[in-house]
Amino acid sequence: MGNTFGHLFRITTFGESHGGGVGVIIDGCPPQLEISPAEIQVELDRRKPGQSKITTPRKEADTCEILSGVFAGKTLGTPIAIMVRNKDTRPQDYDEMAEKYRPSHADATYDAKYGIRNWQGGGRSSARETIGRVAAGAIAKKILRQVANIEIIGYVKRIQDLEGVIDPNTVTLEQVESNIVRCPDGECCHRMIELIEQIGKEGNSVGGVVECVARNVPKGLGEPVFDKLEADIAKAVMSLPASKGFEIGSGFPGTLLTGIEHNDEFYIDEHGEIRTVTNRSGGIQGGISNGENIILRVAFKPTATIRKEQKTVTQGGEETVLAAKGRHDPCVLPRAVPMVEAMVALVLCDHLLRHHGQCQVLS
Amino acid sequence: MGNTFGHLFRITTFGESHGGGVGVIIDGCPPQLEISPAEIQVELDRRKPGQSKITTPRKEADTCEILSGVFAGKTLGTPIAIMVRNKDTRPQDYDEMAEKYRPSHADATYDAKYGIRNWQGGGRSSARETIGRVAAGAIAKKILRQVANIEIIGYVKRIQDLEGVIDPNTVTLEQVESNIVRCPDGECCHRMIELIEQIGKEGNSVGGVVECVARNVPKGLGEPVFDKLEADIAKAVMSLPASKGFEIGSGFPGTLLTGIEHNDEFYIDEHGEIRTVTNRSGGIQGGISNGENIILRVAFKPTATIRKEQKTVTQGGEETVLAAKGRHDPCVLPRAVPMVEAMVALVLCDHLLRHHGQCQVLS
Amino acid sequence: MGNTFGHLFRITTFGESHGGGVGVIIDGCPPQLEISPAEIQVELDRRKPGQSKITTPRKEADTCEILSGVFAGKTLGTPIAIMVRNKDTRPQDYDEMAEKYRPSHADATYDAKYGIRNWQGGGRSSARETIGRVAAGAIAKKILRQVANIEIIGYVKRIQDLEGVIDPNTVTLEQVESNIVRCPDGECCHRMIELIEQIGKEGNSVGGVVECVARNVPKGLGEPVFDKLEADIAKAVMSLPASKGFEIGSGFPGTLLTGIEHNDEFYIDEHGEIRTVTNRSGGIQGGISNGENIILRVAFKPTATIRKEQKTVTQGGEETVLAAKGRHDPCVLPRAVPMVEAMVALVLCDHLLRHHGQCQVLS
Amino acid sequence: MGNTFGHLFRITTFGESHGGGVGVIIDGCPPQLEISPAEIQVELDRRKPGQSKITTPRKEADTCEILSGVFAGKTLGTPIAIMVRNKDTRPQDYDEMAEKYRPSHADATYDAKYGIRNWQGGGRSSARETIGRVAAGAIAKKILRQVANIEIIGYVKRIQDLEGVIDPNTVTLEQVESNIVRCPDGECCHRMIELIEQIGKEGNSVGGVVECVARNVPKGLGEPVFDKLEADIAKAVMSLPASKGFEIGSGFPGTLLTGIEHNDEFYIDEHGEIRTVTNRSGGIQGGISNGENIILRVAFKPTATIRKEQKTVTQGGEETVLAAKGRHDPCVLPRAVPMVEAMVALVLCDHLLRHHGQCQVLS
Repeated sequence: MGNTFGHLFRITTFGESHGGGVGVIIDGCPPQLEISPAEIQVELDRRKPGQSKITTPRKEADTCEILSGVFAGKTLGTPIAIMVRNKDTRPQDYDEMAEKYRPSHADATYDAKYGIRNWQGGGRSSARETIGRVAAGAIAKKILRQVANIEIIGYVKRIQDLEGVIDPNTVTLEQVESNIVRCPDGECCHRMIELIEQIGKEGNSVGGVVECVARNVPKGLGEPVFDKLEADIAKAVMSLPASKGFEIGSGFPGTLLTGIEHNDEFYIDEHGEIRTVTNRSGGIQGGISNGENIILRVAFKPTATIRKEQKTVTQGGEETVLAAKGRHDPCVLPRAVPMVEAMVALVLCDHLLRHHGQCQVLS
Repeated sequence: MGNTFGHLFRITTFGESHGGGVGVIIDGCPPQLEISPAEIQVELDRRKPGQSKITTPRKEADTCEILSGVFAGKTLGTPIAIMVRNKDTRPQDYDEMAEKYRPSHADATYDAKYGIRNWQGGGRSSARETIGRVAAGAIAKKILRQVANIEIIGYVKRIQDLEGVIDPNTVTLEQVESNIVRCPDGECCHRMIELIEQIGKEGNSVGGVVECVARNVPKGLGEPVFDKLEADIAKAVMSLPASKGFEIGSGFPGTLLTGIEHNDEFYIDEHGEIRTVTNRSGGIQGGISNGENIILRVAFKPTATIRKEQKTVTQGGEETVLAAKGRHDPCVLPRAVPMVEAMVALVLCDHLLRHHGQCQVLS
Repeated sequence: MGNTFGHLFRITTFGESHGGGVGVIIDGCPPQLEISPAEIQVELDRRKPGQSKITTPRKEADTCEILSGVFAGKTLGTPIAIMVRNKDTRPQDYDEMAEKYRPSHADATYDAKYGIRNWQGGGRSSARETIGRVAAGAIAKKILRQVANIEIIGYVKRIQDLEGVIDPNTVTLEQVESNIVRCPDGECCHRMIELIEQIGKEGNSVGGVVECVARNVPKGLGEPVFDKLEADIAKAVMSLPASKGFEIGSGFPGTLLTGIEHNDEFYIDEHGEIRTVTNRSGGIQGGISNGENIILRVAFKPTATIRKEQKTVTQGGEETVLAAKGRHDPCVLPRAVPMVEAMVALVLCDHLLRHHGQCQVLS
Repeated sequence: MGNTFGHLFRITTFGESHGGGVGVIIDGCPPQLEISPAEIQVELDRRKPGQSKITTPRKEADTCEILSGVFAGKTLGTPIAIMVRNKDTRPQDYDEMAEKYRPSHADATYDAKYGIRNWQGGGRSSARETIGRVAAGAIAKKILRQVANIEIIGYVKRIQDLEGVIDPNTVTLEQVESNIVRCPDGECCHRMIELIEQIGKEGNSVGGVVECVARNVPKGLGEPVFDKLEADIAKAVMSLPASKGFEIGSGFPGTLLTGIEHNDEFYIDEHGEIRTVTNRSGGIQGGISNGENIILRVAFKPTATIRKEQKTVTQGGEETVLAAKGRHDPCVLPRAVPMVEAMVALVLCDHLLRHHGQCQVLS
């Protein structure tokens, strides 16, 4: 249970870190959308390991194969199955972890829940699972772009205490991709990269904050009361590995303001559109998009798997110590950027279809 | 769409602020649970308006009626329908709001989405909708208590910049309920009450942070990968009115630590149980409960509806000003406490049933 | 679980035969649909007990109240809650049945499943539960009519071995409603009424077949592979009390033909539309509507509750005999007609919205 | 949409007849179940083409690969992905069908719905899609057997007008598999085989009825009111290609009996169990299993794709004739037997988990 996401645009992911492969089935994709493996690969390449000196050295081409649902370059409306084979696996790196639980990782809880676990490379709890999300997100992004020119751009806002200065209203994908840490602040990014390199050498890790903006989202997306747009986005990003917090618009700092300071006053713009002067709402009011930019932040903890020695216990209930082997990211954030974007795209695409289904059928 | 929450323990709420009434249907409740309207009423009374000098003066007894699903004091396993009639409605207070959109409220977005809106008292976007959640939460809490002595306690952690000192591991319901702001810090609570009274007199509003702890949660709840326990809790609380942020465990501040500082080392306790020394994970690892206390925080913005004059626009597209009438809370947090508890209870109860269904059927 | 039906146009019913009342919540209804309680009441009156000499004498006005989701005569897009209070209850009639299981009824299985049961009037398994379905079906019918002039007409095709001659392509609602057995065969209906009266006097019961046609259904509704249109209709009608069989188009008799005899050849009609010469497919091919009339049949067994004495057992495990008291229909079919229509309408409306959501968003 | 089935034991299938392959993801499978590809292959071999002289000569080994969810021979509780590559494809056989719609097939409706279609081998509407169902069904069967020794046996009851005499209470899998038509009537099966061979030579096709029995089903499975056990089984089998009708227990013939004749009287058996003397209910009362054998029948129409010439139209709207090429079964029933069994197993397994989740958590 729990491996399916979305109502109308619905994805199901599968796969462990080591084994046959990982992938996704997308059900409910609108038909006749032009899509190629190359377009999906672009996003997978932003997610893949070994892409730079600050990511895990595990080498995976992560080349995707479309097994179904696309014919002559277009979607059929039937389930799109996308698979990536696992290649550069070194199960021997994990021999120790077959017995010893990594602190703050999923090893112990998977055993507690299922009574069994694929201990190779983290099994299902490995970030390799997100390949399916990113592949599906690539398709969702294309639909959103085609329907309403919606663009979704994520970036690293902060690494530990190094915070970039970025304007979500104008930031471009090119700026984000211009450096390996994916922080579109031309100054701060260098200090971030240095910090990650340094911490990696120490066998330690750091976390930070990813910010994401969705622009050109039409008014009206979101389904109160439980499936409010920010609620579904919160679930989406909090289901990513290592996420510990979520904010929409003003977030936690917004609680320091009074109502008169916090409220977004309305005005009529030059096209006669109702707009807000400020955007502390983050583009969503009452659970429904209001046409302003949707802006959100996700906190990612420092990577749990580190080479430094820590106290832990064995599956058998003995206290011991562990200095993890295997190849791991000293900081998940650069690779988390496309994951956050994908999850936001999946939510928006699902809600676009849901809104269309309920609210535009009588008109 | 979007008015149903949960998979096995599943609730559907209905109702607008003004009109016939509000309520909930609970489907999937285990049979033979003893439950009385009085037990549900206890929670509704914590949520109801007019309960103290710092909440809205709207007077509603919010007396619930159980329409179905309970027989001779026990649940039948069939849908439990609970209804509360609306009584003290003053639609005339809202005449102006039939035309003028309240800034940072749901008025404009409901109109944008549906092309129609019940403008009396906020209609569906009113916090009255949460009556159904709190009523269902009362039943969920009882199941959790009965199955594993799970207890869920929420409290006001912070109002604007006034932050209480509270130990989530030992706080009691009695401490929370000992003052009207529901902050179990005997000193800070008084300053919070003063602040809310003062800001209310000014026709302004404040926000803050609710913290919530779930204790005695068994290991193994949560369904990776999308229905991770923290993801479902995030969605649950981010679907509450006025919520702007969510944290589990170390949350955003945790991103300032390094991996070696952040990780929760394991040890074996005196009962032979695997435990963690610290609890930065907030009781959840890999999306699955690990037996430690689940600790989470929710940011609530200052109430959007205020008596101070603000710039806004009319439904017809004219710029204007609005000083809201109607009766509103200058701070939603005291009444948000039972709402957060209810949402956490609903998620845990649903996951308890789901876990039982998948993982204990073969054993 | 199991009390919700539909994906986008989604209903949840509640209520037992005796107790506070029965009803339904409709989530996902398109906004701005004009709807009045009177329109819903028309359908409820076709379903209600005591409507004629061949139905149960239980007297229930079954007057519905719309609690939410409608404002100024139009749907809001928010959940529509509709409730009917139980009135003419005689729990004393059921005293014996508190102990003795009625053969072929749900008494014993509810006890086996839940370990508890509301034995008054059949509790949740009473046909009163279908009030919610019929009320929701009234709204679904209106949407279908408004969007595409779709009309859904059910009628009694056969009572025991008395079979009417009816052309599904031309039959009208007026013809169906012209007699109390709802068989639009002016001759056969009288013999059916006589048979039901006679069998009722004997304390016995009869069953039969309801046929239903949906006309003007646009091409393209249905979601292969599991949610094929006929599969969802099958589930819908097989969830009605007393149903034992389902056929679409040629049904069981169609298995006696060869392929060349059974296939529906295509032609181009005068409007350039692709049509079929025959309609053994019953309006659905490959799980998707083809624009021809959807024609289906449902078998209903003879009413289980009869006054004749039968062998049975008690809850405590003793063998005994039972001659049921209470007020029951000697034949469920006349009242089943609006139930079948409602279920077909709910499926078509849900699929209309689903199709719109997936397939018309890019165009 | 529509490619997922089940709530707790939930499958999603993918794949077209020609293309990368077909398969299934099973989510919610209980952990620690021993399962091997060989066990799944046994069922796939019963379904595969080319297995006998009366099935399509298309040669597919249909060898399955388990991509995920199984580790060291046991299920992990994570999604089980199973894939079968397409091999013996002859797209050229379908060139004509790229243009000409096969009568009573899904070609025209897929085009009407999606505006695009993979015309090779029927694409998604091909019976190859059922590979995923049968593979998942093999796992469901094993769970059912392990939990309660439940056994599910399907067989051909009738081909056109040739009806076998079979006792569902005693029939064995060995008897079913003893002949290529899967009719466990040692006499009738020969005539059936002759008929199918003859009709196949003529380029024509025949249909018939599959009967299926589930034995040792515990009391209490099924979720009223919409997810009644017979309703979910009806949907399950009516989603199979070529199915036109469904009966549970007495079915349509049962409507010819009176209530006193039809009712299943109760008695107490030698173990103190409540049992029924007869079984016209087909093992389900009030939507819940009663412990008797579940017996159902499915009508399958004659195969639509035949070599005989028929009138049809082209995609472009021209009238024409078609004599289908390609390799097709003159009768789908022998291969439909494992499909029906699989669907019944999937429903029972899902309901077993659902029942466990709701009704056994408090006990």
